[in-house]
Parts: sequence; C-alpha cells; structure tokens
Amino acid sequence: MKADFKTIALVGKFNSPGNSSSLLRLADYLRQRGHEVIITPHTADCCQIRDFQVVTLNEIGPMVDLAIIMGGDGTLLNIARTLVDHRVPLIGVNQGRLGFLADVSIDTMFTTLEDMLSGQYVAEERIMLEASVERHEDVLIASYAFNDVVVSKSSTGRLIEFEVYIDNQFVYSQRADGLVVASPTGSTAYALSSGGPILHPTLEAVVMVPICPHTLSARPIAVNSRSEIEINLIHADDVRVHFDGQRHADLQIGDRVVIRRAHNTVRLLHPEGHNYYDTLRQKLHWGEKL
Amino acid sequence: MKADFKTIALVGKFNSPGNSSSLLRLADYLRQRGHEVIITPHTADCCQIRDFQVVTLNEIGPMVDLAIIMGGDGTLLNIARTLVDHRVPLIGVNQGRLGFLADVSIDTMFTTLEDMLSGQYVAEERIMLEASVERHEDVLIASYAFNDVVVSKSSTGRLIEFEVYIDNQFVYSQRADGLVVASPTGSTAYALSSGGPILHPTLEAVVMVPICPHTLSARPIAVNSRSEIEINLIHADDVRVHFDGQRHADLQIGDRVVIRRAHNTVRLLHPEGHNYYDTLRQKLHWGEKL
Amino acid sequence: MKADFKTIALVGKFNSPGNSSSLLRLADYLRQRGHEVIITPHTADCCQIRDFQVVTLNEIGPMVDLAIIMGGDGTLLNIARTLVDHRVPLIGVNQGRLGFLADVSIDTMFTTLEDMLSGQYVAEERIMLEASVERHEDVLIASYAFNDVVVSKSSTGRLIEFEVYIDNQFVYSQRADGLVVASPTGSTAYALSSGGPILHPTLEAVVMVPICPHTLSARPIAVNSRSEIEINLIHADDVRVHFDGQRHADLQIGDRVVIRRAHNTVRLLHPEGHNYYDTLRQKLHWGEKL
Amino acid sequence: MKADFKTIALVGKFNSPGNSSSLLRLADYLRQRGHEVIITPHTADCCQIRDFQVVTLNEIGPMVDLAIIMGGDGTLLNIARTLVDHRVPLIGVNQGRLGFLADVSIDTMFTTLEDMLSGQYVAEERIMLEASVERHEDVLIASYAFNDVVVSKSSTGRLIEFEVYIDNQFVYSQRADGLVVASPTGSTAYALSSGGPILHPTLEAVVMVPICPHTLSARPIAVNSRSEIEINLIHADDVRVHFDGQRHADLQIGDRVVIRRAHNTVRLLHPEGHNYYDTLRQKLHWGEKL
Repeated sequence: MKADFKTIALVGKFNSPGNSSSLLRLADYLRQRGHEVIITPHTADCCQIRDFQVVTLNEIGPMVDLAIIMGGDGTLLNIARTLVDHRVPLIGVNQGRLGFLADVSIDTMFTTLEDMLSGQYVAEERIMLEASVERHEDVLIASYAFNDVVVSKSSTGRLIEFEVYIDNQFVYSQRADGLVVASPTGSTAYALSSGGPILHPTLEAVVMVPICPHTLSARPIAVNSRSEIEINLIHADDVRVHFDGQRHADLQIGDRVVIRRAHNTVRLLHPEGHNYYDTLRQKLHWGEKL
Repeated sequence: MKADFKTIALVGKFNSPGNSSSLLRLADYLRQRGHEVIITPHTADCCQIRDFQVVTLNEIGPMVDLAIIMGGDGTLLNIARTLVDHRVPLIGVNQGRLGFLADVSIDTMFTTLEDMLSGQYVAEERIMLEASVERHEDVLIASYAFNDVVVSKSSTGRLIEFEVYIDNQFVYSQRADGLVVASPTGSTAYALSSGGPILHPTLEAVVMVPICPHTLSARPIAVNSRSEIEINLIHADDVRVHFDGQRHADLQIGDRVVIRRAHNTVRLLHPEGHNYYDTLRQKLHWGEKL
Repeated sequence: MKADFKTIALVGKFNSPGNSSSLLRLADYLRQRGHEVIITPHTADCCQIRDFQVVTLNEIGPMVDLAIIMGGDGTLLNIARTLVDHRVPLIGVNQGRLGFLADVSIDTMFTTLEDMLSGQYVAEERIMLEASVERHEDVLIASYAFNDVVVSKSSTGRLIEFEVYIDNQFVYSQRADGLVVASPTGSTAYALSSGGPILHPTLEAVVMVPICPHTLSARPIAVNSRSEIEINLIHADDVRVHFDGQRHADLQIGDRVVIRRAHNTVRLLHPEGHNYYDTLRQKLHWGEKL
Repeated sequence: MKADFKTIALVGKFNSPGNSSSLLRLADYLRQRGHEVIITPHTADCCQIRDFQVVTLNEIGPMVDLAIIMGGDGTLLNIARTLVDHRVPLIGVNQGRLGFLADVSIDTMFTTLEDMLSGQYVAEERIMLEASVERHEDVLIASYAFNDVVVSKSSTGRLIEFEVYIDNQFVYSQRADGLVVASPTGSTAYALSSGGPILHPTLEAVVMVPICPHTLSARPIAVNSRSEIEINLIHADDVRVHFDGQRHADLQIGDRVVIRRAHNTVRLLHPEGHNYYDTLRQKLHWGEKL
C-alpha cells in the first residue's frame, strides 16, 4: 500500500501538558521525515511548542493529509467529528492503556508510525452519526456524533417519556432515564454500559439502547444505518441530548431529536496486523484461547 | 383481628385537587363511622375542606392511630418516611391503577375500608432505610428512604467513581452512572429498571444495583439488612444522592453516604386476601395460570 | 406491483388436522381464481384432500411461483429452508395469534390474499444461514437455518467449552450452556430469550448470543453477515447443534461448526401496510403511542 | 475460640489420583497432631492409602468432628449434602484456584490448618435446600441441594412450561429453558450465569432465576427461605431436575418439584481473616480499591 502524507496535523489531548515532550519529539520526527507538520493552538499552548505552523482545528481540515491524535479515545472522538467532512485519515496514539480507537502505543510509536507512514497500515471506514434537534419548524442545533447520541434526564432524577419513530413509522413509546443511539463505534462505549450489544464496525447499523427503562419488555434494537430515527420528547422536567458525551443541548417537551447516518465516514488507520477482536478481547477481558 | 382506629389521618396527593370530592366523602364517611378525622394543611387547601381538624404532617404522627393516604405509591412513600417513627399503620387508596403499596381501589373504597376498619385486614411490616451523608466529621444530611437511596450523576452526563464498603469491609470500586441501594419495597421500583432482582417484602435484605456500570462484571448483590453500606465518592463532577426520588442533596468528592436499616418498620394494612404475588403478576405482566 | 402466481403450493402445519376445512376452502378458492394448486403429501393426508396435485416438499420448489403456508412461524421456518434455493416467495397464514413471519390472519385470509395475489403486497428479502459440521476433514452434516444455529449442551446438564473464530480470527473462548448464532429473523426468537438484541430484517448481520455464560464479561455481538463464524468444540460431554430448533446433530470434542450467510435469500410477501415495528410492538408488548 | 477436632474425616476429589501425595502428607500431619483420621473408600483407593481407617461417606457422619475436603467447590458440595444432617463442620482445601467454598490453599495448607485446628477460624452457617419430586401422591425422589435445584429441558432443545407456586400461592406461569432455584451459596454459581443476583450467605433467602425465558417480563426474584416453592410441570417433552448439577431425575408432565430450606445448615470453617467480599472480588474480577 502506497502512502503520501505530505502534510500532517498533530493534535494533543486537551489540557494535558504531561505529554508535551512526547508531542514535541513526534513533531520533530515527522519534520525530519519530510512531512509538513501543523499543530492546533491548544496543543501549541499546552506543550509550549513554538516552532511549527499553528492552525485552528476548524481550519485544519482542508490543509492536511493525515491527523495524528495523541490522547485517548475521547480526544479522537472530538477530532473525528471536526475532520469528518474533509475525510482526513486519523491515527490515534494512546498515552495510557490501549483504546478502542487509539491503538498505537506511545511506547512504540516511532517504529509503528515509521511503518504506517510508509504505507503499511490497515484502513477502516467507520460510520458517523449526525443529529439535529428540531423545535417547531426550527433546527435548534445540529451535531455529528461518532459514538452516540444520548437523550437523558438531567439533574432532576426523574424519568422521561418519549416516542421513537423510524423512517416515520412509530416504533414505541417509553418511560426511561434516557435512550442511547449508538454507531458501531459507540456500541462498545455507553451503549454497552446500558446493556446494548456490540456491533462490528463494518455493520451499516445503529443500535438503540434504553437507559433504565420503566418497562420490563424494553430491549436493544439494531436498525439499518440508512434509517432515520426520531425521538419525540413527550414528557420531561429536565432533559438533555448529548453528542459523544462531549457536547450537549437542553431539550423541551415537544422537541424532536432526529438522527441519521452522516454522509461521510471516518477513516481510521491502524497498524498492520490490527484485529478488532483482539482489541475487544483485551478491553473486555474475554476468554483467551484454551 | 381486633382494630380500634380512634383517630385517623387523611392525606391527599400533593397538588392534586382532582379528587377533592372523593376525599371529602371519605372524611365524612369516617366521621360518621365514629372516627376522629385529622387532615393535613395541603390536603385541606387543595380540597377546600374546612370542617375537619388540620394538623401538619410532622405533628400528626403522635396523634393518630391510622393514616389513610389517597394518591399513588409516590404519596405513600412520602407519608411513610414521615410517620415511620410513630409506627402509624398506613392504608393506601390508589386513584389510578393498582399500586405496589396503594392497593385499595378508589372505586370500591367504602366497602373495602368498612371491612378493614372492622379489623379485617392483613398487616405487613416493611423495612425502612436510613441514610446519612458524611463530609469530613460532619453529617450533612440524614434521611429515611422507603424505596431507595440512589447516588447518581447529575446534569453533566459523566460517570462517577465510588468505592463501596459493607460493615467496613471493602467490596468494590466502580465507575458507573450511579448506584441504587434499595429495600425490598424499592426492589420493584428504580432498582428493577436498573436490572436488579425483586426481593420479597419479608426479606431482611437490601439490594445494591449499579446503574450503567462501566465494567462488564458488575452484578446486583443483595446483602443483609443489618449490614451498614458505605458509598465513598472518589471522583465525580456533579453527583447527587436521592431518597425515594423525592428528596436529594448534592455530593462532593470525598463524601460518604452511609446506609442502614432504620430501627422502625412501616406497617402497611392490606385488604384481606391480599397477595403479593398477585400484585407482582398484575404490575409486571407475568404469566397467568395455564 | 404486478404479480402472476400461476402455480401455488399450499402447505399445512405438520400433524395438525384441525384446520383441514380452512385449507380445503383455500385450495378451492385458489383454483377458482385460476391458479394451479399443488399440495404436499402430509397436507393431503392430514386434511384428506384428494382433489389436487400432490408433490413432495423437496420436489415442489421448481414447480411453483408461490407457497402459501398455513400454520405458525415454525411451519414457515421449515418450508423456507426447503424452498430457499428455488427462491419461491412465501406467504404465511397464521392460525392462532400473529406471528413474526406468518402475518396473514386466517380470519381475513380471503380478502387479504385477494389483494396480495393481485399484486398488492410488500416483498421482503431475508437472509438465510447455512451451517456445516466438520469433523477432521469431513463435513458431517450441512443445513440451512432461517432463525438460528444453536450449539448447546444436551441432557447432561454440564456446560461446554468452545472457541469462536470469525474469518479465521480468534474471537473468544467461552464456557457456557451454549451459543446462539442468529439471523435478523432469528433475533426475535431464541436469541432474544438468551439476552440478545433485536436486529432489523434489513441488516446484513448475524448475532452471537451466549447461553448462560460462565463468565460475567460475555456480551452479545452482531457481526457482518459476510463473515464466516467457526465454533470449535473444546470440551463437552454431550453437545448438539440445532438448526431452527427443528433439526439437530450430535457433536464431539474437536468438531467445528461453520456458519455462513447462504447465497440465496428468503422472499417473504406481506400484506400492504405491513410494518415490522407494528409486529414487534404487538408481539413484545412494547409501549403504544402516548 | 476453642476447638477440639478429635476425629477428622479426610476426603479427596473423586477420581483424582493426582493429589495422592498431598493427601497422604495431610493424613500423616493430622495423625501426628493427635487427631484420629478417617478416610473414605474412594479416597483410599485413589490415593493408595492403606494405613488409616476407611469408612464410607454415608457412615462417616456420626463418627467425625470435622471433615477436611481436598478438591474444589464441586467436591465440597457433594460432601456437604451427605454430612449436613450430622452437622459436621467442613474445611475445603482447594487444589487449583481459589473457590467460593474451598478457600484454604493447598500451597499453605499446613500453616493454615495449624491455626484453624487450634481454634483460629471463622465459622459460617449456610442454608441447605431440600427438594422432592412428587408424582400423583408419591414422592419419587428427595434430595438435598447446597447450590441449587434446577428444572431444565434435557436433550430435545425445546422449551418447557411450568407454573410456580410459593406457599401455595400462584406466582407465575412461564415458558423457558428451565428455572434455577438457588441458595445464597448457589447464587454465585449457575444462577449467576442465568442472570441472577448475588445473595450474601447470611440471607435467609432463596432466589428463582428463569433460564432463557420466553417472555420479556421475567425477572429473578428472591423469596424467604421459609417459603415453600412448588414448580408444577405443565408441558415438556424431556425435562430433568438437577441437584447441584451432580444428581438428577427425569420428570414427567404433572410432576411437582417442591423446594424448601432444609432443617440443618452447613457449617463452613474459614481461615481467620476470611472475607466474603474479597472472595467475590477475586472470583468475579470486581474493581479494586482506587
């Protein structure tokens, strides 16, 4: 596989000065390798890196051929939403333990990246969700979500009531603490904690998982990613919609949260030999070979 | 069984003027039957009842031999916490559908109450929980809880971290949306939505049910009601402790929520022929006889 | 939509003479409508129908343009496996309560079929699974499964141990009572009882659901229907593989059960206005519109 | 605490000659310590021990003051059922990894036993179940069960139908693969795999956990150990009742399985410092202190 990553964005974890030396060494390494390196302002500030071009995350998309994210899965989620429309491939370097998304270890990053930048990588396309909140005729807010869109009760501790429609067909009404609508990527995150199944990343599917439903007959359901899911808020005191647990908006009774698959996908680059099931097994402590 | 309910408190659902005529008729009926009737101020206001003695809920305990609560399970929970130390027996009249606790139907209340007031009832003792929030050396708040004590994340949508100790023995640490500690009475409420088991009311047990735990190995555990459960808040942005979902307090990192069985029990009076399993089956839509 | 169902197979439920008059009336109706009607031997025997062409189920495939199955979902599963390679469209007439697959009510079958045979129907393609049992170099048995392939302990009551590979990648080892591998069609059957999610019929996915797993970290996982799933039996006293719960074979240690999506799909015809979510809601008692 | 274990039974795991030298050394150690040692015939055979008094397990009860079981939890279950009526205290030496019941490690057994035999132990009483199978007016079989009584489908792979009565009150009917009725001791065994809660050993409770129930509304329920549970078999092709997964009997339609708490309890001796929650945490991989 041939690769030509002329310009590379380097993005650190927000408010995490602890790894500034690693970031700086990585930036130097990339420059020495002949890549043009762009960093984001907060990464520059945080790591006191002064020697590279600084461009805001929102502007960086059209300028780069690759983004290397140094942080955890959370940082990568954020960058993925921002860069998805520019189809910038992403590599995640995990600083701590192995992530589901950030699977290049910081301990071996130079040798791993050497291979990957030479074209030895596994590319994977993952679906992104997009959601909008509609009130009367207006769209109040629209956002991408790589993991999940979660409608859930906020501080009051009371359950909420909502109706779910899929492709304009009524599915069910429910009283619950909330509802998780997750992509395959998000199926191993909050949806899993709420009792949902794991969806393989290649599935063109979205899973809806109720949070603490009031009825005993509620079950997770995986629907086609081409479907449009509408959550209609019927009753609630204090409800929010969360996008990847990183952005949120307050909702009112009568609001509709509409969720679709985004047009563009996220392109993740993994080291060669990457195996989704190995990651699952390690992260979830599943049984080893007998 | 002999009964002598000389003085009876009559309590309506808060902010529910809809049933004022039923309440008034019930008050008249009780007076005609020779009972002294006391009502609470909000019931008096709400139903515009002017003809009976009005005493605040907090003072009513030592004055009455029985309390009849007209409302749903939620109203009964509230009254039970207030009256538990006076060991006032409770009868719940449900206005809507059958409750777990309020099991006298408003449609047949006069005939049912006639029997019950004549001593034809089934008495049941249920355990009450008491919880205190300790910060450094201080007790910030203490409260009874008939259903459950719930420590859970509030508006931020982030999980919390806590350690659980039982009788000063470390049990587990957990990252989750929260933890439900429920009495047998509460085991059919929020704990059930969170995936907990049902505990028969006669069990001297308390069940701990994690809410959306981050780990796959979390499971509900029922412990002895004589045990003292301590929840130690290790990490959180915005957490609350809820008592029966009706009272709450904000928590900080380092706070300890200590939960014990209260000394006194709640004495519920049911119509003769009352059967816990019938109630379960009707409320939970379990299978009928084949 | 145009339809021309020249020759129609009519199949009754096995060993169910109770509905012979309905079957006979249906056969007469179809003949009067100008269709050629073929029935299977057991249907002929069971219903004492002598007036129509009788052809065995195995030979009927190439001869018919449509099969109408009168029975429940179980009967339809069986016919679907037999006819899938001939791509015969199927209509299911349920004799009792609404089925997931058999969704024409016997009470209104003549008016509903009149419309459907005139081309007013909704056609749906559903994936079929195929499984083979491999011992050393031999294929012991191969079978289609429309709902599920289940490897499970048999009479001894002991758990079994197996390894799962997907596309030759090791996924996990597990000790459990068994493993359900279900199509979207089967996701509302045994897989659901075992704790699995519901998969919408349009999903190109297969779900693996462990039965009473010994480990707390086991979770259902939905994988791509293009994947090949291999279950490797490591330890067991008495194990069977079941196909739709209707066929089975005994397994030995070392046996491999290999499951793939079958090449052909099952073509189900539904009455116009058919809505999968309506069926789900009715069958699973999900909440109605508020 | 004072202890005087004059006569000690020593029981090895069935068909496990591997640990004969450990058994022999343990027998010698006990004799040197002044205890009279009795071993069971299969232990004698298996380990070729000729030098000690050999008495069958069924006769050993009245003769000994303590039984030391060398094996795993499975061996201890078996011995517990046999000796419960003689109230012989039990110590379990685990040969492999830590058990829930057998918690003396073989690696440190001499020092641990030295302490325990000197009276430094924690004694724990655990409830035992007793079950009988009734057909018409006859009791077909009666058995103790320390972990659980399981009614489950056998080889056919079809679900069964049963009704459950508690203290002669109808609870529910159910279609399922089976039903687990477990003591607190058994709550961490098969009941846990079937989705049941953990019950602390001090609870006077029994938990009923359905296995793969056909209905979505089934939930585990813990009832009072003083209750009598009756399972009434309504429909089934091939069903068995299992006692601790070690004994079983075939059932017919109409059979009633009646389960009660046994009169006597099992007395387990643990090393000092024994902590149930430590065992849970290690066995179930629960979170360590943060």
